[in-house]
Amino acid sequence: MKVYRVDRAGNPDYLTQHDEPVPQPQRGEVLVRIRATSLNYRDIAMLNGTYPRGQRAGLIPTSDAAGEIVAIGEGIDMFEVGSRVINTFHPRWYGGSPPATLKTDGYGWSRDGWLAEYKVVHQEALVAAPAHLTFEEAATLPCAALTAWTALTGGLPVRPGHTVLTQGTGGVSVFAIQFAKLLGARVIATTSSVTKADRLKALGADEVINYLDLPEWGKKTRELTGGRGVDRVVEVGGSGTLRQSIDAVAAGGEVVLIGFLNGATPEVDFKALFNSAAVFRRSSAGDRSALLNMLQAMEYARLKPVVDSVFPFERAIEAWRFFERRRFFGKVVIANGGA
Amino acid sequence: MKVYRVDRAGNPDYLTQHDEPVPQPQRGEVLVRIRATSLNYRDIAMLNGTYPRGQRAGLIPTSDAAGEIVAIGEGIDMFEVGSRVINTFHPRWYGGSPPATLKTDGYGWSRDGWLAEYKVVHQEALVAAPAHLTFEEAATLPCAALTAWTALTGGLPVRPGHTVLTQGTGGVSVFAIQFAKLLGARVIATTSSVTKADRLKALGADEVINYLDLPEWGKKTRELTGGRGVDRVVEVGGSGTLRQSIDAVAAGGEVVLIGFLNGATPEVDFKALFNSAAVFRRSSAGDRSALLNMLQAMEYARLKPVVDSVFPFERAIEAWRFFERRRFFGKVVIANGGA
Amino acid sequence: MKVYRVDRAGNPDYLTQHDEPVPQPQRGEVLVRIRATSLNYRDIAMLNGTYPRGQRAGLIPTSDAAGEIVAIGEGIDMFEVGSRVINTFHPRWYGGSPPATLKTDGYGWSRDGWLAEYKVVHQEALVAAPAHLTFEEAATLPCAALTAWTALTGGLPVRPGHTVLTQGTGGVSVFAIQFAKLLGARVIATTSSVTKADRLKALGADEVINYLDLPEWGKKTRELTGGRGVDRVVEVGGSGTLRQSIDAVAAGGEVVLIGFLNGATPEVDFKALFNSAAVFRRSSAGDRSALLNMLQAMEYARLKPVVDSVFPFERAIEAWRFFERRRFFGKVVIANGGA
Amino acid sequence: MKVYRVDRAGNPDYLTQHDEPVPQPQRGEVLVRIRATSLNYRDIAMLNGTYPRGQRAGLIPTSDAAGEIVAIGEGIDMFEVGSRVINTFHPRWYGGSPPATLKTDGYGWSRDGWLAEYKVVHQEALVAAPAHLTFEEAATLPCAALTAWTALTGGLPVRPGHTVLTQGTGGVSVFAIQFAKLLGARVIATTSSVTKADRLKALGADEVINYLDLPEWGKKTRELTGGRGVDRVVEVGGSGTLRQSIDAVAAGGEVVLIGFLNGATPEVDFKALFNSAAVFRRSSAGDRSALLNMLQAMEYARLKPVVDSVFPFERAIEAWRFFERRRFFGKVVIANGGA
Repeated sequence: MKVYRVDRAGNPDYLTQHDEPVPQPQRGEVLVRIRATSLNYRDIAMLNGTYPRGQRAGLIPTSDAAGEIVAIGEGIDMFEVGSRVINTFHPRWYGGSPPATLKTDGYGWSRDGWLAEYKVVHQEALVAAPAHLTFEEAATLPCAALTAWTALTGGLPVRPGHTVLTQGTGGVSVFAIQFAKLLGARVIATTSSVTKADRLKALGADEVINYLDLPEWGKKTRELTGGRGVDRVVEVGGSGTLRQSIDAVAAGGEVVLIGFLNGATPEVDFKALFNSAAVFRRSSAGDRSALLNMLQAMEYARLKPVVDSVFPFERAIEAWRFFERRRFFGKVVIANGGA
Repeated sequence: MKVYRVDRAGNPDYLTQHDEPVPQPQRGEVLVRIRATSLNYRDIAMLNGTYPRGQRAGLIPTSDAAGEIVAIGEGIDMFEVGSRVINTFHPRWYGGSPPATLKTDGYGWSRDGWLAEYKVVHQEALVAAPAHLTFEEAATLPCAALTAWTALTGGLPVRPGHTVLTQGTGGVSVFAIQFAKLLGARVIATTSSVTKADRLKALGADEVINYLDLPEWGKKTRELTGGRGVDRVVEVGGSGTLRQSIDAVAAGGEVVLIGFLNGATPEVDFKALFNSAAVFRRSSAGDRSALLNMLQAMEYARLKPVVDSVFPFERAIEAWRFFERRRFFGKVVIANGGA
Repeated sequence: MKVYRVDRAGNPDYLTQHDEPVPQPQRGEVLVRIRATSLNYRDIAMLNGTYPRGQRAGLIPTSDAAGEIVAIGEGIDMFEVGSRVINTFHPRWYGGSPPATLKTDGYGWSRDGWLAEYKVVHQEALVAAPAHLTFEEAATLPCAALTAWTALTGGLPVRPGHTVLTQGTGGVSVFAIQFAKLLGARVIATTSSVTKADRLKALGADEVINYLDLPEWGKKTRELTGGRGVDRVVEVGGSGTLRQSIDAVAAGGEVVLIGFLNGATPEVDFKALFNSAAVFRRSSAGDRSALLNMLQAMEYARLKPVVDSVFPFERAIEAWRFFERRRFFGKVVIANGGA
Repeated sequence: MKVYRVDRAGNPDYLTQHDEPVPQPQRGEVLVRIRATSLNYRDIAMLNGTYPRGQRAGLIPTSDAAGEIVAIGEGIDMFEVGSRVINTFHPRWYGGSPPATLKTDGYGWSRDGWLAEYKVVHQEALVAAPAHLTFEEAATLPCAALTAWTALTGGLPVRPGHTVLTQGTGGVSVFAIQFAKLLGARVIATTSSVTKADRLKALGADEVINYLDLPEWGKKTRELTGGRGVDRVVEVGGSGTLRQSIDAVAAGGEVVLIGFLNGATPEVDFKALFNSAAVFRRSSAGDRSALLNMLQAMEYARLKPVVDSVFPFERAIEAWRFFERRRFFGKVVIANGGA
């Protein structure tokens, strides 16, 4: 089978194709024919060598996939040959408290990921793909969608009438808008592009702020909530946007810290953080149980992920280069339709 | 001012009009000109003498009202003259654990209710009426709407993709359908009427079961969920419907016990209750903080209560008689437009 | 290796010893040398054929064990050869929502249990045994201790100053007393024996009620709480004791339904249940994440299980017969010290 | 009656005594004869003019009191003449979501506080004082004790086996140690004094770190938890200690931000905050419902506050000056035994 491996960090050219034997499932395991994988910001950071936790050399990259089961080991009762599946982002966080391995064990980083034709995993590392989604669509869910879902339903869950602030048009932010609407919330979204602003509104954003026009969009957001502030910030920007998020959040609201994209300002003003009276919560994708809840919601609502572009498996490096230019809206997918 | 008092229990004819002086607000209190009040099943039970907890004789009935503030005492900072308000169902349950007085202190039952032209209460016993609602609409909220909201958002909150079972077309059930849709849930509703079934669907019910055709509607409900059962039952029927609710509920789901309408079967089968593996939770309207959350949701969604009929204040007894016939869909209101 | 199998239901004599090959671990699996297993009421019910869900014939019985790892498959990172472990009660409920298999997959019931010399399981089905406990002590934890822990920390968690009601001196009830004291709660315990009453007090029970002297111990319990009722009932008796539990519980308190020991009264009075204003919650052991929390608490407090008696592996049938006489206080264990 | 008023901010000398008429209770109100009040850091900051939110000039200071009811208005059903009471810190946060007035309405700051002989308040602004405490002891509870209780029981509640980190020997920190022990947690406490270290251990601290000897006490704390970090930090120091708290906290643990004592480092490193994977939660005393829960716990455990010193009402200024020197352990109280 064909796989890609990151021979070393530096740039996408170090992503090389290899030919390897198809692995065999043991007891409790299944063989998945991978039909699509999607890219997340961490995949770029890893390939460029800027991922904060480093990563092992020589691994197969990417954390998200959709595919179908083509062989099963002994004792499989959750799936059968032909089942359409997606993987869980954390290989072993099933629910409850995170395992001790949360910070040290991940696809494409400490163990092989999903940019391959086939992969063997334990059946508990998979869930059924939603029937209303294609493989390309389903492959967007394990990391970005679950991160957005957890950001809104973890902590104090967002409820109808709450206001949610999202930032930009990356995968997590777009899913956050879609899920916030499912949850009955009002959405205020930021972007730097007039065209994207229209797409954000079409997706359900109640208000869109252009942060180039309004660098102090935190204050503006607060004004839009009558001075009270928003109940939830899905903070993907990191230290460069946190100050605006603090200005935007309500007392008792929550800022969910997800991203580290923008490192312009490495320091946070303590007084602002303290006086906001908000909760600051780091969030990392989520567990298998939350993923199932999310899929139940998506299936009932027949909600579709926003796929910006699909690259063929053979041109995976182009997908990375495209992703790096940051012009997309939603998710970038690598598909593998071949035999 | 004109007020109605329940001289004694027995039937609606014992509801008599009196002329009394308008009370004056003291510190922290306001004088409300009452513009509408709504009926709940408990009001009928009290007047007929079948309310389980009994009630004091000679009281002004009803628990729900909307009106405007016409005079204020010293130290009022939440409202001003002219503010449009509704009352909280529990006069002193503001949030957190219920007060010790929850079971002994209620409007129309241990203290005077709202079927009057004016009433003085503490400002904390009121909240602002939603701007998009008339007084008649707003008067439906304190008991029935909050009961439905609490049934869905209390305990394990209903989330998108969950399934909610409602019973019939009374005030609580109709609000439960509306709120379940706001929360992104699927709704299965029961009724005995083809006409009402159409209205339930128009309101958002995904499936409607006619319980006259299907006395074992619990099993049918379970089938409609692929055998898993529903996540929440808003159980207004009491012992007569509980068995069906038990058949309908999923393991880990919740049956919220609200009503005591149907006393046909005074006993519950323990094995069925135990084996359901569900949670059974008695719910009593809700607290002030939950009421504010509900209003925030209604205002954002611009959700309108379903008012079946409005009776003028002078013909309040007719409202009771109409309510007793149980032909309505939603809420029955008594309005007082006069000076 | 030696194993016991339940050739058919009926009585303990149908428990027969077999000699079977030692199984080998595959990827992700470990081989455990079982050093002790403990009995629960369900094991008796299964052997006698009175377990409500039935069970497969020919299985190795018991759900709880402690042992040491003697061989490991590929990819084991949680344990090593020599690790002391106990199993989780539910083979695959790691945390979050219960798996769909919760009601159909269990040790000693749908799959082989632990009354054997060796067993292969996936590493995720085990947790480290507390260092301060012997194998005999540790083998008491998977079912009874976790059931008690979940009953107190699930739902609205018991907190300091709450009152907990326990029933009798079985494994779950004795653990419930110990954990309730760890949680800072007051304990009211029932028993029928003066001697056991003394032991319950020594264990920390604040008050003990002899239910033979006071068949209406529910009312008595309520009196002992100044009329308010208890915050939590660990209800192991089933329909025969539920009425007393309803009389004992506070409005807003929780009755955790665990047992089905006493089937004397198959029906529950709806009015009593409704008017209690309590929550009734069925509980089934608990998940892996909760087990880890429980062990963390036990290790810090150096809490020791109460082991009533230990039977050697060769005399397992005697353990069943002893258990059936119901004279014990705490847990009955079958140990296997041999090579 | 005698009262103290803060004529203007600057220093304790601006605290002057006045003679004023005893106020009269209206409907729903009671007259309290104040027997003791306690000092909190905010009282010092206000008098010195360093309180971040400013305060109105001319107010009676202090937020905490214990006393007895000497007269009641119409409609009082929670207390009677002679009832021993303490006040709630937030005059109108009864439970649930904080009122909009939380940030603008407080004793000694926007409205008169408790350094007076008598005060009229609404009955809902009081709760019964624990019977096992003197007035001096009970007066320590409204702010510091409730802040500590909320810090441990809010968010994800501390449970047996958790580890709690406290800082120093101020009122909140000492209560936090006492409550953490009630909750079954392990306590690691910091101090700069050998003598205080002994008192901290006597109070129940499992480990005490001298932060003068170990300026990097965050790392030391993490080592003491086997590298995992603590589950809860009761952070009273502010920006000057936050970095150590971040080093000490476990992934998924919570840092409760209470204090702003130490402003040495006005900036927080974003990467450290982000990578901690902890929750940062600002906490402000707590609501009336939480206060009642706390008192229930204290009464059952017969827990006594640690009162460092008691100053007579006539020498209130000395209490301020003593407090400013920061040599105390626990709480500083001003008592008013006189007629």
